Amino acid sequence: MANVLRTSSGFVDQLRAAVGSSNVQGEHQMSPDVSHDESLRPPETLPRAVVRPGDRQDVAAVVQLAHSWRVPVVPRGAGTGLSGGCWPRDDGIVLSTERMSRIVDIDELGHTAVVEPGVTLQQINEAAQPLGLVYPVFPGTDSGSIGGTIATNAGGMRAVRYGVTRHNVLGLEVVIGTGEVVRAGGAFVKSASGYDLTQLVIGSEGTLGVVTEATLKLTPLMAHSVTVLAPFHEVSAVATVVPQVLSRGMQPSVLEYIDRGTMRALLTRGDFELGVPPDVVKSSDAHLVVVLEGYDSAALERAVEELGNLLDEAGAIDVYVLDGRHGLDLLQLRESAFWMVKANGADDLIDMAVPRARIPAYLTSVRSIAERLGSRVFGCGHAGDGNIHFSVYEPDDRRRRDLLMAIYRAGLDLGGTLSGEHGIGRSKRMYYEAFTDPAKLALERRIRAAFDPCGIMNPGAVFTWSPDGSQ
Amino acid sequence: MANVLRTSSGFVDQLRAAVGSSNVQGEHQMSPDVSHDESLRPPETLPRAVVRPGDRQDVAAVVQLAHSWRVPVVPRGAGTGLSGGCWPRDDGIVLSTERMSRIVDIDELGHTAVVEPGVTLQQINEAAQPLGLVYPVFPGTDSGSIGGTIATNAGGMRAVRYGVTRHNVLGLEVVIGTGEVVRAGGAFVKSASGYDLTQLVIGSEGTLGVVTEATLKLTPLMAHSVTVLAPFHEVSAVATVVPQVLSRGMQPSVLEYIDRGTMRALLTRGDFELGVPPDVVKSSDAHLVVVLEGYDSAALERAVEELGNLLDEAGAIDVYVLDGRHGLDLLQLRESAFWMVKANGADDLIDMAVPRARIPAYLTSVRSIAERLGSRVFGCGHAGDGNIHFSVYEPDDRRRRDLLMAIYRAGLDLGGTLSGEHGIGRSKRMYYEAFTDPAKLALERRIRAAFDPCGIMNPGAVFTWSPDGSQ
Repeated sequence: MANVLRTSSGFVDQLRAAVGSSNVQGEHQMSPDVSHDESLRPPETLPRAVVRPGDRQDVAAVVQLAHSWRVPVVPRGAGTGLSGGCWPRDDGIVLSTERMSRIVDIDELGHTAVVEPGVTLQQINEAAQPLGLVYPVFPGTDSGSIGGTIATNAGGMRAVRYGVTRHNVLGLEVVIGTGEVVRAGGAFVKSASGYDLTQLVIGSEGTLGVVTEATLKLTPLMAHSVTVLAPFHEVSAVATVVPQVLSRGMQPSVLEYIDRGTMRALLTRGDFELGVPPDVVKSSDAHLVVVLEGYDSAALERAVEELGNLLDEAGAIDVYVLDGRHGLDLLQLRESAFWMVKANGADDLIDMAVPRARIPAYLTSVRSIAERLGSRVFGCGHAGDGNIHFSVYEPDDRRRRDLLMAIYRAGLDLGGTLSGEHGIGRSKRMYYEAFTDPAKLALERRIRAAFDPCGIMNPGAVFTWSPDGSQ
Repeated sequence: MANVLRTSSGFVDQLRAAVGSSNVQGEHQMSPDVSHDESLRPPETLPRAVVRPGDRQDVAAVVQLAHSWRVPVVPRGAGTGLSGGCWPRDDGIVLSTERMSRIVDIDELGHTAVVEPGVTLQQINEAAQPLGLVYPVFPGTDSGSIGGTIATNAGGMRAVRYGVTRHNVLGLEVVIGTGEVVRAGGAFVKSASGYDLTQLVIGSEGTLGVVTEATLKLTPLMAHSVTVLAPFHEVSAVATVVPQVLSRGMQPSVLEYIDRGTMRALLTRGDFELGVPPDVVKSSDAHLVVVLEGYDSAALERAVEELGNLLDEAGAIDVYVLDGRHGLDLLQLRESAFWMVKANGADDLIDMAVPRARIPAYLTSVRSIAERLGSRVFGCGHAGDGNIHFSVYEPDDRRRRDLLMAIYRAGLDLGGTLSGEHGIGRSKRMYYEAFTDPAKLALERRIRAAFDPCGIMNPGAVFTWSPDGSQ
C-alpha cells in the first residue's frame, strides 16, 4: 500500500481533477501545522498531499480515488486532538474538512442544527446563542471542529449534566471507506429502526469514514449560572460530597476537582485572583468547583444555598460563591491546565474514566504506582463523571511505558475505560491493543472491514488492521 | 438451514446436555405464549424448542451449538414487544432469558446497576427506589425485561427528559453469533476507547447477539411531581406551545398529546374521573399532559405557575393541576390506550418519530392520506419528542399496505424515522427494506455478518440476510 503514491503521480493528478488544483496541496505547499495535533509527542510526519474537499461529493470522489489507488486517508478537523487521531502518514493523504464549514440549518423550535464537519464549536454556539440555544459539549477549547469532536466522542467538564458528544449528535452523513455516502439518524431523539450507525461512527476516530454532515441536538441556554468553589483538607472529602450533590438531583453543569499541585501551579501564573485567602489555599489538598444553572433565579438561589450547606457539612474549609466574571475566570483557568502541563514539558497524558464512586481508590492507586516507580504524576479532573486527567513527567520511554501500563491496569481493574474523552488515536494504540480482549478486537476489525474493506481509513489509528491479514 | 433440526434430534440432545433437560422444552412442553409477542398480527408459530439458559456460560453454550448446527436462535425477554422482534421460527429455537433475572449489583454512589437481561423494569425499580434512584425508561409497561427493552431501544413517555434506552444503558455483555462473549462499556458515562459496541447492540433486536448482562445508569428520584392537563380547541395550538415549554428549560418529564378520539374513548371506559367538565372535553380537539418534577417543592410550585401562564397564553381552554393520585391515574389511562386499541380490533400500529417542529405537518399529512384512502387512523403521542402513535383500522391487507406505505413516505419526507420506539422486528421489515437506501442496507448486512457470520441470530428480523447471499 505504501508504494503506490511514491511511484505514481496519477493519483494526485486525479485528486486535482476531482476537487480542483487549489484544493490539493503538495509537499511544498502545505502548512507545517498539518504534521501534528496538540498531543505531546507527535511524530511530525508530512503527508504526500493535503486535500480540502468543499462538499460531500468532493469527499466521496476523494475517498473513491483513494479506495481505487489503495492510498491511506487521514481525516483532519481543526487539529486540536490530544492522541494522534489525525497524525499524517507519509504514504497517505490528509483530508482536511476546513472548507466544509457551513451551518446548513438551525431548527429553532426543534432544537436541532445541521452542520458541516468543519464548523467549530465557537461557530455553532455563536449561531445558536441568539436563539437561546447552546451546543453544550465543551471539551476545553471552542476551536475544535464538530467533525473532530465526533471522531473522538469529545467530552469535557459539562458532560456531568449534558453528556458527551454521543449524547448530543442525533444524525450523521458519512462517506464510508468504499466512497459510498450513508445517512443515519436525524433530527429526532427516538429511533428504533435498524442499527444505530450514528453512534457507531461517533468515537471511531476516522477509521470508518469521513463525516460530511451532522445533525446536532441543541439545548436551551439557561439564563442564570453560579460558580461555587470549596477548598477541602482532604481529597476523600471531595469524593464523598460529589455523589451527595448528584443524588440530590441538583444537576450541576460542572463538578470539577483540582488537586493541590495543579491549583498552586495555576495560581502562580499571576494573572488571576481567586479571591480565596492564601492560607486557605495553602492548607487545602483539593478544591471542588461546582456550577449550577437555572432558568429561574430564585430557584437557583435556593439551590446554591442548599449546595453550600451540603459542602459545609461535608467538611469544606469554606464555601465561596463566585460572581459571573470570577466564575468564568476560574473555569478558564481550569481549562488552561492542559497548556500549563504542555509548557511545563509533561511527557504524557492519561484521561481514564472510572466508576465515579471509585475515584478515591483510583487516586490512591495512581499515587502509589507513581511513588513506587519514582515518576511524577499530577491530576485534576471531572469528579462528576469519574474522568480524571493526569499529566505524567517521565522522560525515559521504557519507564514511562511501565508507569502507564501499571496505571491503566489499575484503572481497568476498577472497572474503568482507557480513555474517557481524548481518544486512542495512534498515541495510545499500543495500550488499547494490549488491554482489549482478543475476541472483541477481532470483532472490531470485522466491523472496520464492513465500512472500509481495503483498509484505507486512518490506518494505524485505534488498532491496526489490514485486509491482507498482516495485522 | 431449515432442515437440520427436523431431521436430527442430536442438536436438541446436545442442548439438554448443555443447560439441563428441565431447561429445554420441546413442542409439547412449551407455553403457547411463546408463539407471539403483543403485536397485533403475530403468526402464532411454535419453535422446535424453548431453551432457558441460567447464565452467560449457558447462553454461550447454546449459541455455540446453534452456530455449529446452523439453527436459528430467537432471543426472547418478557414478550411485550409490538413488532414481532421475538416471533419464533419453526426451524429454530427460542432462547428465553426468564431465568437470568438477577440484579447483580447496585452502586448507590455511582448511580449504576448491573443486571441480567431477564430482570423486569418493575424489578429494577423496586430495588432502586429505596435508594432514592430510578431507572427512568418507561415504555408503557413495567413488565418488560431489560434485555427486551435493550433489543428494541425502548422509549416511552419519559424520554422527553430522560432519553430512551440507549441513553440509560452504559455497558453490555453480549454473546455474539459466534458464541463468543464480548464486553463493552461499563459504569462510566465518558469513553473514547474503540467502537461503541454497547450502542450498536442496543436497538439491534437480537440480530447481533444475546445480551447476558447490562450496566444501567440510574437517576435520582425526584421528591415532588405535578401533573398538568390542558385541553385545547386546536391541535396546532398544542404544537405551538410544546417548543415554548421546552425552550424555557423546564425539562418536563412527560409531554403528551391526546387527540379527541382517543380521549373520548378513554373516558367512556367509565372507570376514570378526569375532573374536567364534560363540555370542556367535548369542545376540545386535543389535550396536552405535562408532568414537572423537582427535588425542591417551592421551586416546583413556581415552575407549575409559570407553565400555567404559558399554556393559558397559548390558548388552553383551561389548565388543570392534578394532584398526585389523579395525575398517576391519567398517565396510566394514557398508557392503556394501546390495550384499548388492541381490544377495539386495530389492524396495525405506526410509531414514527418526526422532527418535533414538524408534528403539525405530519398530522395533517396522515389525516389527508387516511381520508383519501378511506381508512380510519387515530393518534396520540409523545409531543415532546415527535413520536406519534397511530392505530390503523383497515382490515384489507392490500389497502392497509398502501396506507402504511403512504404514511411512512410522508413521515420520512419530513425527516422522520420509521419506528420511534417499537422496533422493526419481523412485522415492519418489508417497510424497512423498501425505504432504506441500498448502500446503507448493504453496510448493515456486512455489520451483521461481522457479529454473526452464519446468520443464526434472529433471522428475518429488521432485514433479511443470509451468508450464502440468497437474501
